[in-house]
Amino acid sequence: MNAPTNPSFDVAHLGHVEIFTDRFEESLDFFTRVYGLKCSAQEGDSAYLRAWDDYEFHSMKLTRAERTGIGHVGYRVASPEALERRVAAIEASRFKSLGWVDGDRGHGRAYRFEDPFGHVFELYWETVRYEAPEADRSALKNLASRFTGNGVNTRRIDHVNLLGEDVSEFRDFAEVCLGSRVTEYIQLDNGRLGGVWFSVNNKTYDLVCTEERGKGHGRLHHVTYATDTREDILKAADIYLENGVFIETGPHKHAIQGSFFLYAWEPAGNRVELANAGARLILAPDWEPVCWTEADRKKGQAWGLKTIPTFHTHGTPPVEE
Amino acid sequence: MNAPTNPSFDVAHLGHVEIFTDRFEESLDFFTRVYGLKCSAQEGDSAYLRAWDDYEFHSMKLTRAERTGIGHVGYRVASPEALERRVAAIEASRFKSLGWVDGDRGHGRAYRFEDPFGHVFELYWETVRYEAPEADRSALKNLASRFTGNGVNTRRIDHVNLLGEDVSEFRDFAEVCLGSRVTEYIQLDNGRLGGVWFSVNNKTYDLVCTEERGKGHGRLHHVTYATDTREDILKAADIYLENGVFIETGPHKHAIQGSFFLYAWEPAGNRVELANAGARLILAPDWEPVCWTEADRKKGQAWGLKTIPTFHTHGTPPVEE
Amino acid sequence: MNAPTNPSFDVAHLGHVEIFTDRFEESLDFFTRVYGLKCSAQEGDSAYLRAWDDYEFHSMKLTRAERTGIGHVGYRVASPEALERRVAAIEASRFKSLGWVDGDRGHGRAYRFEDPFGHVFELYWETVRYEAPEADRSALKNLASRFTGNGVNTRRIDHVNLLGEDVSEFRDFAEVCLGSRVTEYIQLDNGRLGGVWFSVNNKTYDLVCTEERGKGHGRLHHVTYATDTREDILKAADIYLENGVFIETGPHKHAIQGSFFLYAWEPAGNRVELANAGARLILAPDWEPVCWTEADRKKGQAWGLKTIPTFHTHGTPPVEE
Amino acid sequence: MNAPTNPSFDVAHLGHVEIFTDRFEESLDFFTRVYGLKCSAQEGDSAYLRAWDDYEFHSMKLTRAERTGIGHVGYRVASPEALERRVAAIEASRFKSLGWVDGDRGHGRAYRFEDPFGHVFELYWETVRYEAPEADRSALKNLASRFTGNGVNTRRIDHVNLLGEDVSEFRDFAEVCLGSRVTEYIQLDNGRLGGVWFSVNNKTYDLVCTEERGKGHGRLHHVTYATDTREDILKAADIYLENGVFIETGPHKHAIQGSFFLYAWEPAGNRVELANAGARLILAPDWEPVCWTEADRKKGQAWGLKTIPTFHTHGTPPVEE
Repeated sequence: MNAPTNPSFDVAHLGHVEIFTDRFEESLDFFTRVYGLKCSAQEGDSAYLRAWDDYEFHSMKLTRAERTGIGHVGYRVASPEALERRVAAIEASRFKSLGWVDGDRGHGRAYRFEDPFGHVFELYWETVRYEAPEADRSALKNLASRFTGNGVNTRRIDHVNLLGEDVSEFRDFAEVCLGSRVTEYIQLDNGRLGGVWFSVNNKTYDLVCTEERGKGHGRLHHVTYATDTREDILKAADIYLENGVFIETGPHKHAIQGSFFLYAWEPAGNRVELANAGARLILAPDWEPVCWTEADRKKGQAWGLKTIPTFHTHGTPPVEE
Repeated sequence: MNAPTNPSFDVAHLGHVEIFTDRFEESLDFFTRVYGLKCSAQEGDSAYLRAWDDYEFHSMKLTRAERTGIGHVGYRVASPEALERRVAAIEASRFKSLGWVDGDRGHGRAYRFEDPFGHVFELYWETVRYEAPEADRSALKNLASRFTGNGVNTRRIDHVNLLGEDVSEFRDFAEVCLGSRVTEYIQLDNGRLGGVWFSVNNKTYDLVCTEERGKGHGRLHHVTYATDTREDILKAADIYLENGVFIETGPHKHAIQGSFFLYAWEPAGNRVELANAGARLILAPDWEPVCWTEADRKKGQAWGLKTIPTFHTHGTPPVEE
Repeated sequence: MNAPTNPSFDVAHLGHVEIFTDRFEESLDFFTRVYGLKCSAQEGDSAYLRAWDDYEFHSMKLTRAERTGIGHVGYRVASPEALERRVAAIEASRFKSLGWVDGDRGHGRAYRFEDPFGHVFELYWETVRYEAPEADRSALKNLASRFTGNGVNTRRIDHVNLLGEDVSEFRDFAEVCLGSRVTEYIQLDNGRLGGVWFSVNNKTYDLVCTEERGKGHGRLHHVTYATDTREDILKAADIYLENGVFIETGPHKHAIQGSFFLYAWEPAGNRVELANAGARLILAPDWEPVCWTEADRKKGQAWGLKTIPTFHTHGTPPVEE
Repeated sequence: MNAPTNPSFDVAHLGHVEIFTDRFEESLDFFTRVYGLKCSAQEGDSAYLRAWDDYEFHSMKLTRAERTGIGHVGYRVASPEALERRVAAIEASRFKSLGWVDGDRGHGRAYRFEDPFGHVFELYWETVRYEAPEADRSALKNLASRFTGNGVNTRRIDHVNLLGEDVSEFRDFAEVCLGSRVTEYIQLDNGRLGGVWFSVNNKTYDLVCTEERGKGHGRLHHVTYATDTREDILKAADIYLENGVFIETGPHKHAIQGSFFLYAWEPAGNRVELANAGARLILAPDWEPVCWTEADRKKGQAWGLKTIPTFHTHGTPPVEE
């Protein structure tokens, strides 16, 4: 791993992910009634969803499609000038530019580009802040919307994890195009990177790339929202159980990043995680990326839970083994 | 205070309370949507409500009335023989018998009697267990109904607090008629009892009598349901805030009994408390009642919060000062 | 399973367990510094330990020995008369009486008897209440000792799990000798009982017998203390990790009994569990024991965790396979 | 309030505060045994303390003095160049430069300056990372030191609150000298600012100035460390109670910033707060500062608790009224 990369802060934060589902109604029911997101709008083939503490119009765009997986990942930049700097950096790079798009219900024009494994990203400055209607306005004027305690009570979008055939290559992509810094990574004995965790701000991560072990390309490993507390995640496990949601693994604590996790599959098969909002912040400007070797990984998760096999194989869309 | 009273265990547990409301629709909306109770049935002027962990058909009977306050308090006995013993004890006492009633949606015939301050109690053996319909059946076969995490997520009925003009007299009533034991009490400097906490089982209390300081008679101070955790009660405070429910005091911890509390008024004005289910159990068969003097009480609640004035005056139905 | 057994309430509660250790100093360090127990006294080959909410002198007697496992299990009865009734019942039974012993630091004379698998039990009425010295006296007069938050912050003794070659036989023993009731059980496809959970009071269980699958006799499966919250157990996992304590499995939630658990091995190898104090109470006097079949058990723990192999083999003292 | 200020990110984070105490031994005992800080070194008249998740050598310098209050506030910058930029900005401003100092046990040379009310600040780049000795090394390689769960289990330094005679003036100071942005503020009816909350990064605040209502100058209102959870803060209240620590107010939730709080006075009288680490992040680059009017403030804290009078008068060092 190279010397630590100081983030440019040109990119402010993960804004939204677009998730494809081939069971739109069931997925929408899951995300709103069980997962606890609120629906800002439903338009065409998409529903625009957000958690109660997300300030933008949407943090998830759920789109009816013939397959599952990820549509695109949107990051908001820190200023119009930062957007210009980023676009210049991307266009000067070896990575694939897709050019400007007009924007969407939740934001203005956006610049699109692609990682080497087929995942589409976009950067935008102009956003649509969520304006709560009366029924969703919080009693506290510093909240974007009402705290309802609905379902598993997700609070804000947290991160997205993508599968890539060459994690080192993805690391270069994230550093060059997003100005991300690496906070932790897995170093395999074969010299390859097994996974890398990135952040553009003080959150400990907002983006992860782990190695694609199947024949997939451009696949999603999972998308994660944060809950307030670990206790929320324990309750979420009961709510999943009672609603017939498939729990893949957890609740438990990750050794890497130390976040408390629960993985489940939404009705269409996309993996969704819950993690706790109180996780570590990376405040050190010269944070040294933490290296996890295969020997470290053999100890399992923080408290010894072994990683289950599907975690290495299941992604969306599914592929034949 | 006399020597500790070993509970007879003839009375098994608090079964239900009947609450009167002069704003039936609003109260029902509060108790189901916000407070988190489930509605087993609505019939005539009453709704039969229960929390997800209550095994009987109902633990609250909410009844449309021209006033607020308490209708009656129902306790389930430990066996048919225990019921006979209790009835004999009540009939042999100086307290007022009201005789047998036919029962209700949630239980069989019941024996009614009255405390010296006009509160009606009943004892019953035959009960109607809640039989969850498919949509409310838990994935766990040892649960009475589905865990939903709905609203403030109340788990089970906990206790009821009644106002009485003479707390010593109420203590005799509870010991003689219910076979309750005293677990804690307030000894006023004037020689009177300020409040007494009673239990018929290993819960640390299920019944409280505190001194009526107004001109009321037969009034309710509050009814309480337990939540799983203190964190649930913190979230409840936010949910109350967002739903415009009047928070009277809390969240904080009682010095007496050590329970974590939050007091609010439901739309008709009846005071409802939340307390945490993980409170102390009284396992000692010879538990010595804990005496709190006025000097002790001057320290406030466990962490110093002062008792607010309405706590000493507000009861239902309200009375002119 | 026969008709539900109504508990006699002659036996009040689990009082203490005696644990043997062949690494006394290490075990004592674990139980006091990590597990959070307080030492009332150390005398001869034993240390007398208790949690902050245990009202008796000790709830664990830790004894230096040449082997690990359980010394005896002590239950406190509800009254002197209850003790007489119990002794008469035991002596009239087919189970083995060991007669009276003089008592111990923490209680008066006790009547000893043995289950068919070599575990020694005792019943006693006269107890020694813990009298906190000034430095351990709580600011709250209703607490037995000071809340310190020390280590994993155990609150009270919860239950003990013994291995028995014939669980049906143990069920008869517990019903006859202790007046226990069965709250849940595992029914194996071969017609045998796989495990039974018992309670003498409103706690959902205080004693468990699971089937001995090895060549052991009189072995301990585990002893459990309760913490206030599930969050305490999550923190405990970190404290175990940091102190090099072997975590066997968890934290997770049991399907049976619904308790949140964490299993670890203390330095001498005795399995110790943490469970949350806020678990379900069994208030129904006619609780119907819940039956879990092998088909049920195949679903794993509440949220799907599979039972690990050592859970079926490891007991203390260890035996050759 | 002017247009929102985009933070420069030149200043990375609050690094440490120096606290004066005229009861050094008692304060040190409080901060280490009760408040849960670890002592990196004791040297001369100072102890260097940090929480388990603070990556630097110290986040609190506790110094023996003839008075209480604040010594200085240290912020770490994002790079050597950022330090140059900041120094240039300060020297070009109307605020008072104190010049370079050699550094301290925990960091290299630092540039000092003073706010208009006598509080000393310093900026530094070169820091001393905490290198855990074996006994304090975490089992998790991404943690700066061992998680012990000691005392109230503080996790990291959170913020400092200073009293200033003119909050508007302090706002200019913080924006110019630290590059802070305002996240929330109190607008008094008299046109003055009652309090302003600042942040240099994604934390919702790290610095607060509230109006000095006494005759003090350069006084400290409080210093705050974050705990993992709100439950930690509830336990902290019990630990304070048992240790005779004066609880001033709380636990409760602030309307402003939404943090859960508990205020106490350490033995020398300095006010110390606990707040939960899971508080809101300010990810929006164009966050609009939230304005709280006197009318808003009349509603009390988030759940209605009224602000206690000492909160407006007590600061350190104390002043005659």
